[in-house]
Amino acid sequence: MPLLAGAAGQVDVARFFTVLAVMLVVGKFAGEAAERLRQPAVMGELLAGIVLGAGLLKVIPTDAADPLTPVFQLLAEVGVVVLLFEIGLETDLKAMLRVGPGAGAVASVGVALPFLLGSLYWLSGWHGYEHTVADPVTTAIFVGATLTATSVGITARVLKDLNVLHSLEARLILGAAVIDDVLGLVILGVVSGLAAGTAFTLSGAARILAVAVAFLFVALWAGVRYAPRLFGLIDRMQVRGVLLVSAFAFLLLLCVLAERAGTALIIGAFAAGLILSETNQFDVIEERIKPVADIFTPIFFLSVGAAADPRTWNPFVAGNHQTLAIGAVLFAIALVGKLASGWAVPWLRVNRTAVGVGMAPRGEVGLIFAQIGFTGGILSDRLFSAILFVVIATTLVTPPLLKRAFASGATAGEPGA
Amino acid sequence: MPLLAGAAGQVDVARFFTVLAVMLVVGKFAGEAAERLRQPAVMGELLAGIVLGAGLLKVIPTDAADPLTPVFQLLAEVGVVVLLFEIGLETDLKAMLRVGPGAGAVASVGVALPFLLGSLYWLSGWHGYEHTVADPVTTAIFVGATLTATSVGITARVLKDLNVLHSLEARLILGAAVIDDVLGLVILGVVSGLAAGTAFTLSGAARILAVAVAFLFVALWAGVRYAPRLFGLIDRMQVRGVLLVSAFAFLLLLCVLAERAGTALIIGAFAAGLILSETNQFDVIEERIKPVADIFTPIFFLSVGAAADPRTWNPFVAGNHQTLAIGAVLFAIALVGKLASGWAVPWLRVNRTAVGVGMAPRGEVGLIFAQIGFTGGILSDRLFSAILFVVIATTLVTPPLLKRAFASGATAGEPGA
Repeated sequence: MPLLAGAAGQVDVARFFTVLAVMLVVGKFAGEAAERLRQPAVMGELLAGIVLGAGLLKVIPTDAADPLTPVFQLLAEVGVVVLLFEIGLETDLKAMLRVGPGAGAVASVGVALPFLLGSLYWLSGWHGYEHTVADPVTTAIFVGATLTATSVGITARVLKDLNVLHSLEARLILGAAVIDDVLGLVILGVVSGLAAGTAFTLSGAARILAVAVAFLFVALWAGVRYAPRLFGLIDRMQVRGVLLVSAFAFLLLLCVLAERAGTALIIGAFAAGLILSETNQFDVIEERIKPVADIFTPIFFLSVGAAADPRTWNPFVAGNHQTLAIGAVLFAIALVGKLASGWAVPWLRVNRTAVGVGMAPRGEVGLIFAQIGFTGGILSDRLFSAILFVVIATTLVTPPLLKRAFASGATAGEPGA
Repeated sequence: MPLLAGAAGQVDVARFFTVLAVMLVVGKFAGEAAERLRQPAVMGELLAGIVLGAGLLKVIPTDAADPLTPVFQLLAEVGVVVLLFEIGLETDLKAMLRVGPGAGAVASVGVALPFLLGSLYWLSGWHGYEHTVADPVTTAIFVGATLTATSVGITARVLKDLNVLHSLEARLILGAAVIDDVLGLVILGVVSGLAAGTAFTLSGAARILAVAVAFLFVALWAGVRYAPRLFGLIDRMQVRGVLLVSAFAFLLLLCVLAERAGTALIIGAFAAGLILSETNQFDVIEERIKPVADIFTPIFFLSVGAAADPRTWNPFVAGNHQTLAIGAVLFAIALVGKLASGWAVPWLRVNRTAVGVGMAPRGEVGLIFAQIGFTGGILSDRLFSAILFVVIATTLVTPPLLKRAFASGATAGEPGA
């Protein structure tokens, strides 16, 4: 009689199973509905997350006191990491490296412009907001910083949903998103320091940058060199599922290495995919990781949606007007700043709108920045809520806009290929 | 820049990824080693669990204070539930129902005999053990009860590893294990009452039994009637992974229903598999659930192993002798009692040793019973440790014994098929 009710002691297994099942079913049906409305499936998952999340039905645990909250956070992490791994597997490493300079230009413009515009907007005082909790300069830097980081998860899913992963635009966006991640880490180091009250040092920022870049190069170099031999050996093993499980464990370990090197988990995930795409077993791995991604990835997108509380944006509630007004301006800045990044590569013939829109979603990264500013006492309730609005709005407009951009503009082929 | 280090707040993502990766890699390599030694792979996973577990390397979190402990408990539950689902998918419902009476006989003998022998051994005083913490009769009932329940997970895995799931023996064992689960629930209700100090009532026990049986019948009847139509509709949906995700959610929900009906989660899982095996999509579901099972199922077997602390059985430590002596006698009773159940079906021509051995493993269920007795103050430290020994020993001897039983004795075909 294995596993009785409540066998796991303090955790409620039945509740865990129920929440997981509801999330998966509602997510899939919302994804199907989105596709029927000619929108990417991820759009449905995000909206399903909002409906099931903290603000409305409260099905998805987000409360820190709920023992299931960390469980779903961890499963969501597995979800995004498996997604980036899949994207990496489908990406041609050499074609990726060829767009390096272009990706660097896109990333730099897409980080610098929103930061400058956001900070200047705040310093200008045009928002008319008085209830700042920190000095205006620190607040302005924070507001600018929350607008900088691209959340590649959303864009990658849409590119995959639209079947354009092999276009030059997709490679530019993915490459820029990785570089953006590295720049974002540097900014995070700076703003975390500000939140903690320590001064900014250029050497500290340079160190973070150097370690992240070094990790990527070493991992890719060593991986491409040794992984094919390693997976050739694993492929000779007999026990069921050994190839998939080894690839999955490889993914997890590379994420951990990336994090230990001071960079982001998902850079490790993308690198793991790129590396295994060079092995002879990559097609089997790709096929077998799919069902695993089908289970885990929606958990991530639902969780992103679940963090939002749409009630704070209800215009019929007094006091929400200013929040919405600030949110709307920041949203415009966030969108225009990233859109402009598509024009950062004048030497490439690409669909510039598609590239710019692809860089737009802020997703959970903006949430992390905003969270640090909020708990650090730099952002007020209302400003925090306005930034949440920006994060969710940029995330929600990306799937339909990106679809339209790819449909209307021409897609560039590989130059010289 | 999605998902920075530590994005999930209080939970350590990097540690979670590391532990998961180490469990999966060590489990697979131990499984491979076991197969090379002509043992079922699950044997290697159990031993890997013991080595990585509470007693030795402490890699797998088992401490209640560790925030990752409930996470791995929940993933292990998903693992065993997916395994039973897979087994159900591969099982022919009609052939299963045909062995009903035989399975009932096997289950009854396999529950009654260990209970009687275990209780009598304790009442006889032959063990020479003085440090009882409750009255001898209650203790005797508890000792007997811990020996009754079969853990079908181990046996199911071995039957699968040996490729004999379609033999009459396998159907008898699986059917008996389900009935055993139902009987086990009744016993659990009784002993939990004893531990809490409430008196045994026949009506209470009968109610538990009736609800469990009713659940199984209603679920199978309604499932076989409506699931094919439901999954036919789902199959027409377009969004990626919808069939697998729906099947997985169906599995989770049936587990929850089973639990709400007062029966065990895994009965729901097995029923879900049986039901979906009657749909037109069962082969696609079976193929796509495999990679999911490859990731989750080893977590369960490693966790079972991890609960054991082999140091308490070290014969070189003074005071462990009596524990080991009691453990050895209870182990013999546990094995003989279940072995005899193979002879409970004189009207069937089957490999009786295989059936008896298949019912032998106690796995995590014995642990649950022992835990209740221990925390309820009925079992002393030493008696608890002896019962743990029985649980682990019956679990570890099953894979090699079952393999041998199937190899030596003839396997019966389907009677009249």
